[in-house]
Amino acid sequence: MGKIRVTVWNEYRHEREHDAVAAIYPHGIHEAIAAGLREHPDLQVRTATLDEPEHGLTQAVLDETDVLTWWGHKAHGEVSDEVVARVQRRVLAGMGLIALHSGHHSKIFKKLMGTTCSLRWREADERERVWVVSPGHPIAAGLDAHFEIQEAEMYGEFFDVPAPDELVFVSWFQGGNVFRSGACWRRGNGKIFYFRPGHETYPIYYMPVVRQVLANAVRWAAPTNGPAFPYLADAINETEPLEPLPEKRGDRERVG
Amino acid sequence: MGKIRVTVWNEYRHEREHDAVAAIYPHGIHEAIAAGLREHPDLQVRTATLDEPEHGLTQAVLDETDVLTWWGHKAHGEVSDEVVARVQRRVLAGMGLIALHSGHHSKIFKKLMGTTCSLRWREADERERVWVVSPGHPIAAGLDAHFEIQEAEMYGEFFDVPAPDELVFVSWFQGGNVFRSGACWRRGNGKIFYFRPGHETYPIYYMPVVRQVLANAVRWAAPTNGPAFPYLADAINETEPLEPLPEKRGDRERVG
Amino acid sequence: MGKIRVTVWNEYRHEREHDAVAAIYPHGIHEAIAAGLREHPDLQVRTATLDEPEHGLTQAVLDETDVLTWWGHKAHGEVSDEVVARVQRRVLAGMGLIALHSGHHSKIFKKLMGTTCSLRWREADERERVWVVSPGHPIAAGLDAHFEIQEAEMYGEFFDVPAPDELVFVSWFQGGNVFRSGACWRRGNGKIFYFRPGHETYPIYYMPVVRQVLANAVRWAAPTNGPAFPYLADAINETEPLEPLPEKRGDRERVG
Amino acid sequence: MGKIRVTVWNEYRHEREHDAVAAIYPHGIHEAIAAGLREHPDLQVRTATLDEPEHGLTQAVLDETDVLTWWGHKAHGEVSDEVVARVQRRVLAGMGLIALHSGHHSKIFKKLMGTTCSLRWREADERERVWVVSPGHPIAAGLDAHFEIQEAEMYGEFFDVPAPDELVFVSWFQGGNVFRSGACWRRGNGKIFYFRPGHETYPIYYMPVVRQVLANAVRWAAPTNGPAFPYLADAINETEPLEPLPEKRGDRERVG
Repeated sequence: MGKIRVTVWNEYRHEREHDAVAAIYPHGIHEAIAAGLREHPDLQVRTATLDEPEHGLTQAVLDETDVLTWWGHKAHGEVSDEVVARVQRRVLAGMGLIALHSGHHSKIFKKLMGTTCSLRWREADERERVWVVSPGHPIAAGLDAHFEIQEAEMYGEFFDVPAPDELVFVSWFQGGNVFRSGACWRRGNGKIFYFRPGHETYPIYYMPVVRQVLANAVRWAAPTNGPAFPYLADAINETEPLEPLPEKRGDRERVG
Repeated sequence: MGKIRVTVWNEYRHEREHDAVAAIYPHGIHEAIAAGLREHPDLQVRTATLDEPEHGLTQAVLDETDVLTWWGHKAHGEVSDEVVARVQRRVLAGMGLIALHSGHHSKIFKKLMGTTCSLRWREADERERVWVVSPGHPIAAGLDAHFEIQEAEMYGEFFDVPAPDELVFVSWFQGGNVFRSGACWRRGNGKIFYFRPGHETYPIYYMPVVRQVLANAVRWAAPTNGPAFPYLADAINETEPLEPLPEKRGDRERVG
Repeated sequence: MGKIRVTVWNEYRHEREHDAVAAIYPHGIHEAIAAGLREHPDLQVRTATLDEPEHGLTQAVLDETDVLTWWGHKAHGEVSDEVVARVQRRVLAGMGLIALHSGHHSKIFKKLMGTTCSLRWREADERERVWVVSPGHPIAAGLDAHFEIQEAEMYGEFFDVPAPDELVFVSWFQGGNVFRSGACWRRGNGKIFYFRPGHETYPIYYMPVVRQVLANAVRWAAPTNGPAFPYLADAINETEPLEPLPEKRGDRERVG
Repeated sequence: MGKIRVTVWNEYRHEREHDAVAAIYPHGIHEAIAAGLREHPDLQVRTATLDEPEHGLTQAVLDETDVLTWWGHKAHGEVSDEVVARVQRRVLAGMGLIALHSGHHSKIFKKLMGTTCSLRWREADERERVWVVSPGHPIAAGLDAHFEIQEAEMYGEFFDVPAPDELVFVSWFQGGNVFRSGACWRRGNGKIFYFRPGHETYPIYYMPVVRQVLANAVRWAAPTNGPAFPYLADAINETEPLEPLPEKRGDRERVG
């Protein structure tokens, strides 16, 4: 079996504009995420960022991508609708998508969810404890019953997303909130995972447990070679029935 | 408890353009659907159609609508994006939406699902048998284990929608196909039901069993007075924690 | 529409054996729960307890019960298997079941779930904050985004139950845990709701918000008059096909 | 990564009692299933049957089993309750279980589902067409949009099981029925798949497409090394909170 081809996408603005972020992620959040994934020999990793031509997400790049991870925050509006539509089509055709942290408000995640994807939030350096609520799920591989992030931005319910097909993690926050912080959905042939941890002002993407989750999620979201997604062009008019039918009535106008 | 206020929306083009359709639905599909709902004294019904100003779906009309039913087919593209966004916001705020038959390809349904909502289809006057797979669901109230439609357009799997939160009906078709023909989803505070039967060239909306399903669905989809949907404007920055937190670190730049 | 007939079942041992419990629930937990439900004129309420003959759950009582609420803790093992089987059959036939707090370990709940229904727990008078994660669900009617219980026993994840069909509440605990504290399942024609709050040493069943949830849950769980549950006796050998079939092959032995 | 260890369990009675079955499965259904799985080098396969001591399912065998497949029909009642309880515990601890065809009525499947698992059925040599409704699911790997079984026993809805966590296949039957014929559930740490095709009087387990499904299902159901299932002994009294709590009130009796 070949390697899983991952494209790590990042907005890559905070890191170039704020010293506090650059101090944590000197080569960008994408390079920290990519480095974690590169620890796994079954994954083949490249990166792409907002300010590259076509945001680094040409059709050719997407065609060679099995799983796309998405980190964005302050410039969601600058992502072109054309690229978003292109990514959506690739997800429906089978590409995995992993939306990270503030990626909950990205155009692509909102488009695939059909909701605002909004939430409550607070920046107060509070503790987060992430609990596994589906211990048999492959995204929980190698984890303990819970793990902690000592300082985190808070995201709280109500999280306006469709009820997840599978709920893997629920977070506790020191300030009194809870959040469904690891959740799976399927859209078309594609698998989508949202993972909450990961603010730009905390070194969360260096944490081994977070890197474990991301590698697990990539493997879970990779395409699985089922029947090809049939509707990239349009619905299918299957005029020939699979079973014999009586003659159609000839006595009436067809409307179509 | 007040009546449930239903707005029955219809494209209303086939009926004015094709004699065969006008013969079945002389006052439009919407009037046939509305007549069925008006048999139920707990429902208060009005109609709206594509060619009315703002498609009959002004903000005022939507604000007075608990459940919106949607039938469209050949003119999905003529529904304005502004009205679609308005309907989506009302659904997220709690209004029920019932998408009917070819409404699977309406802008509003696709927007709320995030997928193509495509399917296989065939017009061959074949028999459909609708099986109840969730007999305890309120949308199955008053039904038998299955019901039949003697002549129907075929819709077949794969139906490209998110996995339903609740699957109520699965259809068998004479020509060899199956279809998830009654399915529920929640988006924001709103409830959505898709119901497959109902082509313009068959008198399906006069069938008592179909009318029963539509009344059941309206009752199920009506708003339930939970916590108000909080994100019509934006996410919520809840700066004050619900539990006491340690002082924030003062030693670093805020990014926001 | 007739009233919903509720039977409030209680183990009723703690209240007779411990002064601390009797001080809170002098007439038993069942009477506190029943009093809350009796505030709603659409509900007709009776009670039953462990030490009555057949635990108060004769076939006649169950046949007249639309929704059964269940509170037990220290004497789960004394509930007879025959009564448990009787209740299970009524649930499959359409009766609603609401398992309360330590009822997670009752025979009937475990039998319907197929799992251990175990969890982490701690008695430390800590604060619980119950968050609504499905604001459009009828069980959240009349609630705010969250409510608090100032002193509660802690129940924490992993809660070993099947993934809920609908998740309504998630609890935050002061000591660092989270819990899926309001969850729905369907079994046969019946609807099941589990609601976490309610330890015998706290006056939780007098809280208006808790009483609101219980009334909501009863209405949600009431039978909905769908197709009758067909398998109380056995599977159904439907020898006559619904569609014409070719002659059966006569050339081979039947096994059956 | 080591091989996935599969134990193929079979009742193995029909094959020894009926010539018609023996003609199709001369070495037993288990050997046909095992032969199909042995085509895959990542699977390590053994068999076990009802009439072996402890039905071939000693604790030692189960401890070395990653995925158990189960075929039974006429002798469900002869499976000992002790072995059933042992298998259930292994499933909760993470072992995968694949229930095949008439295994829907096995003690172990019913125990894990909590329902009757009954259905409609008919033996009439009719055609079955199995449709993929979740093309991105790993159990659909390598399949087309549908596959056919030319002669099959019919199983029809309503299938009295909990709503599947993931629905992969829906079957069409020539005689007019439909059935959810491939469905997934999680219980504890374990994954369960039910697959409908496979009656003893048809050579279905020799079909390459069926063998593909079974191999896919085994891989999907294999344990994934998440947090260990914590409740084989009992619930967990986690007396030490994870976060500091105020002193417990000392003014009241503990009930426990």
